[in-house]
Amino acid sequence: MKFSPLVQELIHSFKCLPGVGAKSAQRMAFHLLERNRIGGKKLAESLALAMDNIGHCQQCRTFTEADFCDICLSPKRKISEQLCIVETPADVIAIEQTGEFQGLYFILMGHLSPLDGIGPDDLGLDILESQLAKNQFKEVILATNPTVEGEATAHYIAELTKKYQVNISRIAHGVPVGGELEYVDGNTLSHALSGRKNYHF
Amino acid sequence: MKFSPLVQELIHSFKCLPGVGAKSAQRMAFHLLERNRIGGKKLAESLALAMDNIGHCQQCRTFTEADFCDICLSPKRKISEQLCIVETPADVIAIEQTGEFQGLYFILMGHLSPLDGIGPDDLGLDILESQLAKNQFKEVILATNPTVEGEATAHYIAELTKKYQVNISRIAHGVPVGGELEYVDGNTLSHALSGRKNYHF
Repeated sequence: MKFSPLVQELIHSFKCLPGVGAKSAQRMAFHLLERNRIGGKKLAESLALAMDNIGHCQQCRTFTEADFCDICLSPKRKISEQLCIVETPADVIAIEQTGEFQGLYFILMGHLSPLDGIGPDDLGLDILESQLAKNQFKEVILATNPTVEGEATAHYIAELTKKYQVNISRIAHGVPVGGELEYVDGNTLSHALSGRKNYHF
Repeated sequence: MKFSPLVQELIHSFKCLPGVGAKSAQRMAFHLLERNRIGGKKLAESLALAMDNIGHCQQCRTFTEADFCDICLSPKRKISEQLCIVETPADVIAIEQTGEFQGLYFILMGHLSPLDGIGPDDLGLDILESQLAKNQFKEVILATNPTVEGEATAHYIAELTKKYQVNISRIAHGVPVGGELEYVDGNTLSHALSGRKNYHF
């Protein structure tokens, strides 16, 4: 015995979400049907609207329904002449929350991954180059993830950026604040040692 | 800085799903936007369709877009004169997969929970009584969950069913097949002991 066709289809549709298998999909479907039809309708609406209308910012490539995102439109941001290159829009939010960075962003929407068929063009590096060619930046900060793919991507972009005569920096690798040395992995610890700085009194 | 309004709204809408918080909602939104817009549109459609059209089977209360579900419509099912009372439609699927039961179901869509304001009327016990009054069943099997609320619900339904002269049974509590006695909790083990049966050679 199976559920009725419409219920079955709803459960199946939920499986397109990341980390959602058969059981979770069933739980989500039943939860909305039994307890939150209004929320379900709301989700259906914003999903349909979002899938049709959200595109990429023409300058930084983040998700937005407008042509340019708020950060790219802000005149204050251009003054710093810094460009921070990150992998995802979520990384932008994380960096914005620190309040340390006042420049512009470029979002790769992924990282180089030849095995998955993701090459430089998929990361919009042509758009990045055309921006660098305009000579509006003094520093490019490579803030891709400290993973193998992220490092490779950073390296690739660094090579590509060389000819535009800007400072190229990479975010620091080291022990996370609040952690204990004992539990930090060896690779991170050797980065922390080799990247040591003079102590500021 | 925040995401653009439409992205923000999509992320917020995902939070209506059970077990989905801010981070998962963000991940789901980005996944669909970046990798699976077709799946997202499909989900939006089936969600809208489901929320508007799926109701309850008039006989057993399971989710269906028709007036009666397949099991209730099946003439074979009535012959057994057994009614199995479960908490959710997922329980029906679980029991159906065993292939052991050929009767009809009644789905409570929850359990008695006075603290959450869920009383007998919310579980459709009036519909259940009207079915029992028709005298079409010889046995009522109480298959609510072996939790405190499930037991209380089973007890309540047993009391209510008494006057209709049907056999009332409860699914067996005991050690799960394939488990190890050492790791079974004391409550289950004492149920397993008190519910012991003569060994069949």
